Amino acid sequence: MNAVEQMRKFVEPKSVAIFGVSRRTGETASNILENLLSYDYQGRIYPINPNATEILGVKTYPRVADITDDIELAIINLPRSLVPGIVKECVEHGIQSVIIETQGFADAIDEEGKQLQREIDKLINKSGVRILGPNSLGTANAFTNFSSAYSKLVMAKIPVGIICQSGVFFHSFSQVKLVGKGIDLGNACDIGFADGMEYFEQDDETKVVALHIEGTRDARRFMKAASRLTQRKPVLALKTGRSEYTAEAVQSHTGSLVGRDEVWEVALRQSGIIRVNDIDELGDVARAFSSLPLMKGRKIGIVSVSGGLGIIGIDACQQFNLALAKLSSITMKRISDLSPSWQGVGNPVDIWPAYMVLKQPLTKVLTDTLDAVLSDHGVDAALLIWNVRPRQACTQICELLPKLAMAHPDKPLVCCLFGAYAEEAKNSLEASGRIMVTNTPGRAIRALSHMAQYSAFRRGF
Amino acid sequence: MNAVEQMRKFVEPKSVAIFGVSRRTGETASNILENLLSYDYQGRIYPINPNATEILGVKTYPRVADITDDIELAIINLPRSLVPGIVKECVEHGIQSVIIETQGFADAIDEEGKQLQREIDKLINKSGVRILGPNSLGTANAFTNFSSAYSKLVMAKIPVGIICQSGVFFHSFSQVKLVGKGIDLGNACDIGFADGMEYFEQDDETKVVALHIEGTRDARRFMKAASRLTQRKPVLALKTGRSEYTAEAVQSHTGSLVGRDEVWEVALRQSGIIRVNDIDELGDVARAFSSLPLMKGRKIGIVSVSGGLGIIGIDACQQFNLALAKLSSITMKRISDLSPSWQGVGNPVDIWPAYMVLKQPLTKVLTDTLDAVLSDHGVDAALLIWNVRPRQACTQICELLPKLAMAHPDKPLVCCLFGAYAEEAKNSLEASGRIMVTNTPGRAIRALSHMAQYSAFRRGF
Repeated sequence: MNAVEQMRKFVEPKSVAIFGVSRRTGETASNILENLLSYDYQGRIYPINPNATEILGVKTYPRVADITDDIELAIINLPRSLVPGIVKECVEHGIQSVIIETQGFADAIDEEGKQLQREIDKLINKSGVRILGPNSLGTANAFTNFSSAYSKLVMAKIPVGIICQSGVFFHSFSQVKLVGKGIDLGNACDIGFADGMEYFEQDDETKVVALHIEGTRDARRFMKAASRLTQRKPVLALKTGRSEYTAEAVQSHTGSLVGRDEVWEVALRQSGIIRVNDIDELGDVARAFSSLPLMKGRKIGIVSVSGGLGIIGIDACQQFNLALAKLSSITMKRISDLSPSWQGVGNPVDIWPAYMVLKQPLTKVLTDTLDAVLSDHGVDAALLIWNVRPRQACTQICELLPKLAMAHPDKPLVCCLFGAYAEEAKNSLEASGRIMVTNTPGRAIRALSHMAQYSAFRRGF
Repeated sequence: MNAVEQMRKFVEPKSVAIFGVSRRTGETASNILENLLSYDYQGRIYPINPNATEILGVKTYPRVADITDDIELAIINLPRSLVPGIVKECVEHGIQSVIIETQGFADAIDEEGKQLQREIDKLINKSGVRILGPNSLGTANAFTNFSSAYSKLVMAKIPVGIICQSGVFFHSFSQVKLVGKGIDLGNACDIGFADGMEYFEQDDETKVVALHIEGTRDARRFMKAASRLTQRKPVLALKTGRSEYTAEAVQSHTGSLVGRDEVWEVALRQSGIIRVNDIDELGDVARAFSSLPLMKGRKIGIVSVSGGLGIIGIDACQQFNLALAKLSSITMKRISDLSPSWQGVGNPVDIWPAYMVLKQPLTKVLTDTLDAVLSDHGVDAALLIWNVRPRQACTQICELLPKLAMAHPDKPLVCCLFGAYAEEAKNSLEASGRIMVTNTPGRAIRALSHMAQYSAFRRGF
């Protein structure tokens, strides 16, 4: 079995044995079986429990040796002292893929934790068995309704895959959804970033890969896998543990070595990985790559209902190294025809006077201007800044914008929305799968900047 | 009448005359009278309209000369060519305070706009009449249910005052509410930042002042007013128009001169103003100052359900120049007693093993740990990082946290929340008026860092 096939058994298992399934259910029970049933996972499930015959209507087995069917994946969620014994049973039964969720191995400060880890290492040595964890939620796959996590997840069939060292990234942050597919490496005693990246390289359901890195043991394999993957898909990294203060905390979180941040900076850049600095940025850039066409150049056209926010957009272009497009005379003419004669027209285009002074319908002013900007050959992407109102125009504009985006299939359209109906408009626009929405001009420009950078990287710059 | 008394007539008028009230109503009508009635403004309102006798049940007047009562404020929202004539009527009628909302004066590129502005300047010269605008929404005051804005606003009685050059800041961004009271300077042909700052200095309803600056004409008065105000209240500034590219856009937005950004950087720092870099940051810091006690030092204690996010918290401390508190042996003992013996306890405190491995109730683990950290003399502020679950604990914890904050009245408590019930918990906790909530550790630490900086400034560092 090659390495990618084995990774498939972790992420897309057709059959799972679960060690440590209790009869307790509900939110505080952390019951993996209950979660799998709630997701409507269609694979075969074999709960192992010596004290039961069935749990939640599923037949249980006293020991893994009692299962005669083929098992692709074992999930262990039992006290740490029991774990090596279970791993031994798995190895003897021929299970090739094992997730250990239990804490207290390399992440512990006591000798017992280290000793238990050594026992596990010895058991799998040269066996062909691979381990994900310990101290891991395992994997998640929205496309097959599967997750090994003891926490119940909200998954979405989005083309974003994450490889992380904290189960927290399996949960969504306010605007940040990262798990179409997820691999939580935890302590990464065996399976590491390179294995995950090799899996995502060949996975057609994943278009963008996000990494949450605390450290890695095999820098060479990391670089090799990353350099291959970035030639096919954008890879984003939130490398944490940047300072000397974090080394100890990382040690007791996942037992990883953080490495010097300057070294990571260079390594990530060399392998073509896009480094992000916080969780919001990770989410924004993942959404940008998964919903927008790849930006060709660095030139932005901004259409704004607010002169003040347009100026904030220019500041952001400067901060994130994008250029303001110089609009063509044709574009300028189209816009001037809509604007009061006294208005100095340029990029950013301030559409407020056309609406407020000339009393033209906002729907017309907004979409005509945006179409003019997107049609300009000197524009690589457009940012619309809109205080979502009035109510009626809102509905019309939210119907027209995806059509406008589709009519310009090679240019990203990002909307910075605010005001009373912003949330509603955001949901409607993002549902089109072709428009990204942010709450500030800066976040929009930052995401576009990463796209432009990756585009240049792919073209060999 | 002194300058502050005159500013009161702009922000807290007891009577207003409105020029340019139409019979049209509804969201697209931009009807100032309709807005005032909807806010339940209790002052006297005098709409001027030569073609009506009443609008929306309010008696109208053909000309301002027909009004015999005292009028504190005039609001003009008419085509630009009519504005100087109206200003003349106001001056002759003895109205001392005039808001001009119309666009197309210093913000225009044509000669007519400049000429109209010169006429206005001449009319008010030495008259004692002051003008706010043109190209301004005027003022807003949640405490008196007043706003001159033609856009309908959602105001909240929060102790935040804003002085801005774009009406967009009168509207709320996703998490950013800035208008307890607001002054939109627009083109700032007369009233400028110094006038606004002098008003907020003496206003007891305002505890934090936010500035959105594109430029200013009178740098000396700005510096003087700012240096006085920052000695009494925190002042935040979003200075936009940072680059050479923005000069032209700012000119056609508010006719301001942007000034060199390096000069602004020094001026803001010297006057004790806290410079922020984006809208999210402006909102976060305003919320922090308006809900939290002032942080005494720079030392943070972090309590986290996630080791991974705790490490992101440390990175943020390094980035924003805060220190991780070294916990006392008493604190360490209290925390160790709750934790598995194998766990290396330190700051950040990872409470997940105490809950997940030792199966202790989350409510107890979380609040006991946070109490231990807040009780530590070496800790100046605490950050709680919490995936809001399970449901039942959520309700309990949201009841207990404000009590905990109240029991430590001199230390800010900030919560970084995520997960399914995060929004609900945020609303509940922020309603206590004593806890600030963010969606990432970085935003929490950044806001605390500004507090620590301002605290040092006030102590003379």
